Amino acid sequence: MRATVLVRPKEGILDPQGDAVGSSLRQLGFAVDEARVGRVVDLEVEGSDPAEAREQIERMCRHLLANPLIESYEISLEGHE
Amino acid sequence: MRATVLVRPKEGILDPQGDAVGSSLRQLGFAVDEARVGRVVDLEVEGSDPAEAREQIERMCRHLLANPLIESYEISLEGHE
Repeated sequence: MRATVLVRPKEGILDPQGDAVGSSLRQLGFAVDEARVGRVVDLEVEGSDPAEAREQIERMCRHLLANPLIESYEISLEGHE
Repeated sequence: MRATVLVRPKEGILDPQGDAVGSSLRQLGFAVDEARVGRVVDLEVEGSDPAEAREQIERMCRHLLANPLIESYEISLEGHE
């Protein structure tokens, strides 16, 4: 089963990479007020039960994919929005 | 206008970060066949015309946000899917 996880810096958390992207875009002439940069992780997980897969991926997020102190995550399962 | 850009390594392109994530997940006991890692960029852009905003963001992708040789990108505008 394919899944996509979006990991983003939480609101209020400093994001130097996003700041750098935003200022570079403005230097190039683009009208950008803010940019925030996170990670997208595409996973191919075993099993066919969407509830179980989501629960596994929640655990992956808490243990490895995200730092829950400073990052939020959003899980979507292909075909099971 | 808020927009989200997903930048991913193209199919067939080596992704050492994804390989590392996949093997770490397997070491932790998760049943993961593959992991690919890219970036998510959330943008707040000026203007209210969705077609124009999308065109601007396409240009940002080609010039700064993605390396079109090895990365693909996907743009979504909030409220204009």
